[in-house]
Amino acid sequence: MIIVLKPHSSPEVVAHVLERIEALGLTPHLSQGVSRTIIGVIGDEQKLQVEPLQAIAGVEQVVPILKPYKLASREFHPEDSVFEVKGIKIGGGHLAMIAGPCAIEGEALLYEVAVRVRDAGANILRGGAFKPRTSPYSFQGLGEDGLKILRNVGDQLHMPVVTEVMDPRQIELVSRYTDMFQIGARNMQNFDLLKEIGKTRIPVLIKRGMSATVKDLLMSVEYILSQGNREVILCERGIRTFEDSTRNTLDLSIVPNVKGLSHLPIIVDPSHATGRPDLIPAMAMAAVASGCDGVHIEVHSCPEKALSDGPQALVPDQYARLMDELRRLAEVMGKTIDVCEGEPVSCAPC
Amino acid sequence: MIIVLKPHSSPEVVAHVLERIEALGLTPHLSQGVSRTIIGVIGDEQKLQVEPLQAIAGVEQVVPILKPYKLASREFHPEDSVFEVKGIKIGGGHLAMIAGPCAIEGEALLYEVAVRVRDAGANILRGGAFKPRTSPYSFQGLGEDGLKILRNVGDQLHMPVVTEVMDPRQIELVSRYTDMFQIGARNMQNFDLLKEIGKTRIPVLIKRGMSATVKDLLMSVEYILSQGNREVILCERGIRTFEDSTRNTLDLSIVPNVKGLSHLPIIVDPSHATGRPDLIPAMAMAAVASGCDGVHIEVHSCPEKALSDGPQALVPDQYARLMDELRRLAEVMGKTIDVCEGEPVSCAPC
Amino acid sequence: MIIVLKPHSSPEVVAHVLERIEALGLTPHLSQGVSRTIIGVIGDEQKLQVEPLQAIAGVEQVVPILKPYKLASREFHPEDSVFEVKGIKIGGGHLAMIAGPCAIEGEALLYEVAVRVRDAGANILRGGAFKPRTSPYSFQGLGEDGLKILRNVGDQLHMPVVTEVMDPRQIELVSRYTDMFQIGARNMQNFDLLKEIGKTRIPVLIKRGMSATVKDLLMSVEYILSQGNREVILCERGIRTFEDSTRNTLDLSIVPNVKGLSHLPIIVDPSHATGRPDLIPAMAMAAVASGCDGVHIEVHSCPEKALSDGPQALVPDQYARLMDELRRLAEVMGKTIDVCEGEPVSCAPC
Amino acid sequence: MIIVLKPHSSPEVVAHVLERIEALGLTPHLSQGVSRTIIGVIGDEQKLQVEPLQAIAGVEQVVPILKPYKLASREFHPEDSVFEVKGIKIGGGHLAMIAGPCAIEGEALLYEVAVRVRDAGANILRGGAFKPRTSPYSFQGLGEDGLKILRNVGDQLHMPVVTEVMDPRQIELVSRYTDMFQIGARNMQNFDLLKEIGKTRIPVLIKRGMSATVKDLLMSVEYILSQGNREVILCERGIRTFEDSTRNTLDLSIVPNVKGLSHLPIIVDPSHATGRPDLIPAMAMAAVASGCDGVHIEVHSCPEKALSDGPQALVPDQYARLMDELRRLAEVMGKTIDVCEGEPVSCAPC
Repeated sequence: MIIVLKPHSSPEVVAHVLERIEALGLTPHLSQGVSRTIIGVIGDEQKLQVEPLQAIAGVEQVVPILKPYKLASREFHPEDSVFEVKGIKIGGGHLAMIAGPCAIEGEALLYEVAVRVRDAGANILRGGAFKPRTSPYSFQGLGEDGLKILRNVGDQLHMPVVTEVMDPRQIELVSRYTDMFQIGARNMQNFDLLKEIGKTRIPVLIKRGMSATVKDLLMSVEYILSQGNREVILCERGIRTFEDSTRNTLDLSIVPNVKGLSHLPIIVDPSHATGRPDLIPAMAMAAVASGCDGVHIEVHSCPEKALSDGPQALVPDQYARLMDELRRLAEVMGKTIDVCEGEPVSCAPC
Repeated sequence: MIIVLKPHSSPEVVAHVLERIEALGLTPHLSQGVSRTIIGVIGDEQKLQVEPLQAIAGVEQVVPILKPYKLASREFHPEDSVFEVKGIKIGGGHLAMIAGPCAIEGEALLYEVAVRVRDAGANILRGGAFKPRTSPYSFQGLGEDGLKILRNVGDQLHMPVVTEVMDPRQIELVSRYTDMFQIGARNMQNFDLLKEIGKTRIPVLIKRGMSATVKDLLMSVEYILSQGNREVILCERGIRTFEDSTRNTLDLSIVPNVKGLSHLPIIVDPSHATGRPDLIPAMAMAAVASGCDGVHIEVHSCPEKALSDGPQALVPDQYARLMDELRRLAEVMGKTIDVCEGEPVSCAPC
Repeated sequence: MIIVLKPHSSPEVVAHVLERIEALGLTPHLSQGVSRTIIGVIGDEQKLQVEPLQAIAGVEQVVPILKPYKLASREFHPEDSVFEVKGIKIGGGHLAMIAGPCAIEGEALLYEVAVRVRDAGANILRGGAFKPRTSPYSFQGLGEDGLKILRNVGDQLHMPVVTEVMDPRQIELVSRYTDMFQIGARNMQNFDLLKEIGKTRIPVLIKRGMSATVKDLLMSVEYILSQGNREVILCERGIRTFEDSTRNTLDLSIVPNVKGLSHLPIIVDPSHATGRPDLIPAMAMAAVASGCDGVHIEVHSCPEKALSDGPQALVPDQYARLMDELRRLAEVMGKTIDVCEGEPVSCAPC
Repeated sequence: MIIVLKPHSSPEVVAHVLERIEALGLTPHLSQGVSRTIIGVIGDEQKLQVEPLQAIAGVEQVVPILKPYKLASREFHPEDSVFEVKGIKIGGGHLAMIAGPCAIEGEALLYEVAVRVRDAGANILRGGAFKPRTSPYSFQGLGEDGLKILRNVGDQLHMPVVTEVMDPRQIELVSRYTDMFQIGARNMQNFDLLKEIGKTRIPVLIKRGMSATVKDLLMSVEYILSQGNREVILCERGIRTFEDSTRNTLDLSIVPNVKGLSHLPIIVDPSHATGRPDLIPAMAMAAVASGCDGVHIEVHSCPEKALSDGPQALVPDQYARLMDELRRLAEVMGKTIDVCEGEPVSCAPC
């Protein structure tokens, strides 16, 4: 850590800062120049980063050198992490192809979509039972009934399933039905939720918040990891900018950026990022070409009647065409798309 | 609501859209121009806004006319709402002057700060017992011990108190100690928390999320109101932009903007918005001049040792000087700052 | 165009708005609902869009239906435009591979870089003679000497060249040396420059401004087209957001977005977008996968001594490795990379 | 300047960096910690800031300590600068009250508005003769005819005038008619324009670009100052963010921020910042309360017929009411609003 003092700092100020640093058991290195005095600090920087050194009178700037996250960092774990969800690998060259409707609306509908996306090559089924809707007057999800449907359809088709959890009180319930938790963008800094999820041993897909930097995202991941749950997958889903012709702005540079900073897999959700079916295929292609570990796409068999986010869903035919292209691209990129084992069986009512 | 069809839409497309609208019990008005066909819809627009009309093939654009919130709107409640928290009025010309440390660190410290800010003119005491920290390695708050201290100090000084609640599971506990809930920026779209808070009858201070539009904020307020809790106060605390010399960018235009759209009071937090003590006084002045209903400022007697957000705290002397200026300004603006009744008594250990 | 009146508008207000519309020779269509009155306008909307209808008392909202640009729109020109710069095609499946140093620093250096990028597959040479630098104390470019060097090296290697023009007074000079103008991001709304460039018949590469929406970019393009110069190529180079780990945020969704709205080619510049050599290759791959018409990359043989933007330059070896990957990707995408004709000759001093 | 090396840097890397620093005539100070090596550099940092040290292999981060601008900084000129434009002082407690229509449309109209705003207390008249319009199909201004009208009206009313210059080729012409140049937001980084304006000795009002940081703005100011023109006034007019209910987001924190960093006056333009007459008065009040040196407001006697930006203009009556409030506020703030001398004479045609 480097501490820059204001111009013309008095010897008292310098002495006070040195004293504070030594009181923390760390060693300061003083460099006095003509216009500024600089203090380098050697020692456990993590200790120092939580101290309000910036608040000391006479301090102009505090420059941290080390990353504020540990367990998520590539320095801590140099190899790519690879996780397995019911036989489907994610990371280390294996692409997660997550697809399904935004919300679970009923068993027949989910089964219909699931069969189609599985045929097209999807290897994880998604569907929301608890929905974070901007308006209190919108459909809020089927709750436990939805979870049962998701589990049943997943089992019939031998597909692992992922669903969102929004509230620490839902974790126990959701954990009985899902293979992977999803934490939504709006909850990326719901720290109590992160801590509770961190105590489970179920893989987590965590979406980047709309105004989260790469560092913020990795700090939220650190909350989960530090509780003992090591299976965390990141998901870019667009950030909020001034551009208003798309729902959000997809920031694909986070993919190679995270690959440098962390060992964890990162996937991309072009559905929420663009909100526009006409842009989703191109952005899914771009995502895979950027080196990500999977793509998350919303598919609905009748978007104009969907109870949630219909306008951004692909129909199954569009998804199938896109998967054909993604497969060709994955081959050029040297990536594998794991296939769900077994034969689908017809879906019995749950 | 207005639905604009794509150029050269076939009669089948037009007929399909009309059919969908009529199926919802609404009346469409068709206008056919040379380059576009436009359909106006008369009827309960709220019903329509949750329908995915944008997903109908042939629809180019859907333009909502009515606001998506009702209970929060000024059309619903034309007069300014004025709320009272233990005798201190907020709104309708009464300014809430909320001050205190970021986190509650101990009783002696809180009492010291509280006496000073009360003397300076603050009329509500703040302090965090549950802290949403970006890093899992930072101080997370004293929990119930902190709540007890806050209640005790508030009682000694006859000051109403406000404190943050982060998790639906904490609501019952916090409600035993606080006079007003605070919902933090990171939880502005934690919809389960909003719903549960909406079931209580304790006033709520809700902070604008870092990437929330005015409309998003009012929709989150609608979640609370629609559960029956009508005492909601909004708080601007800065949004995230590209400008990196301040912690966030204070968007004061939200004050007159909200005054036009809603009947609810809105206050301003220049501490989190700027993150810089050298800018807080000027922004507090600007806030009151913009017509807001109060100012929320963090004060600590020794910022360089604060356990949370020390670098952005004012010291009590700075706060007192600022309050002198704010009082003069409030007078010119025709605003009143209610004063806490009674005499402070010395603080017995809780 | 749709005009929405405020609730409870008086008949006088309605009459006044209708009168204003008819005075412009257009036909209004009135729809009166319970809570709002809506007026649709049929006729030449371009005429109306420049009128300040929003300023009429009683008008709540004005909703334009047609795009404000014409010549740039796909409705005006349904087929993809394909341009040719000295035998190198851009658009319609042909990728422009533009490479070279940020600034022209000397003939030997430029020749060295140019030979290397040409060997790797670049088909257009870039280099700045007039440099828009944030600081007045930074290197500002070699001016005409730089242009001569660029022309000479381009001729020796049979490569078309592109260089930036910043000031209307430079156009005549620059046009004597270059095959394509570049308009930089900071000048995207320098309207006098756009108009003057529009009067030439030299192809133009126009970069998206840091805070320009897709619509803003197309309006700037319209300035050039409306002066008669029809050969305009767009370039995405990142927008400004809150994310601070990259120089800008590359918004690749603009590629399919522009493809829907316009017939013009669009290329991508991952160098300025990321500012980080470790991210450039992945973003170049993503760009081509998104369907763009070319990639613009800065290459320098000794970045640590570059006079401009060294920290974001690739070295020639990195560029060659990237081009190998881009070629394989282009093949999968069904795209062609035109090759410069002829044999390089050694560079005589200019 | 501080240079942080990557973890586990070899002695060769360290030696190479030291060598580069010494070759520039500067003195490096080495601190080797367990996880990082840090090099502090003492000497003329300006020299170093233009060097691409970040591009050296092995360098992780370069942290500048000194500000990149000199002449604009408060360290260079500790006292507030106060400028005088035809007897009207700006800065040092004197508020510039700039008002007038967006565009000059004709002499009678400008005279009418000018008389009204002068009566209300405005002390500088604005009006655009060259207009930077987003659309090439919008009114582009009257050019020299407009300048003549502005000069004539200003002279009749003894008001100094300010008008925008967009192109270096217009400077000589505009300088014959105006008392102050305006550089618009879109030209804030039109460096050739800045340099040429810097060679004149006419005061300059420079508007912050829509995506310019405080530092960017001060660097653009430095371009003008470094050419010898020392009379530069800054203007905040809103930045581009995700919030779409206002035209831009007014960032008032720039006012105290600039006051700390620079000696130059800064004024605020709430018209362009909000684009909404209902918000302008509150934001003008907030601006003055934040400590700025003036307010720039667009006024038109018939906004619905204005040729440019009508929807954001105040009418003269609204302006007069606002000025009454601003005067009371200015008094509390201890600020003076200079008054134009002499009696208005009726306007002879120019």
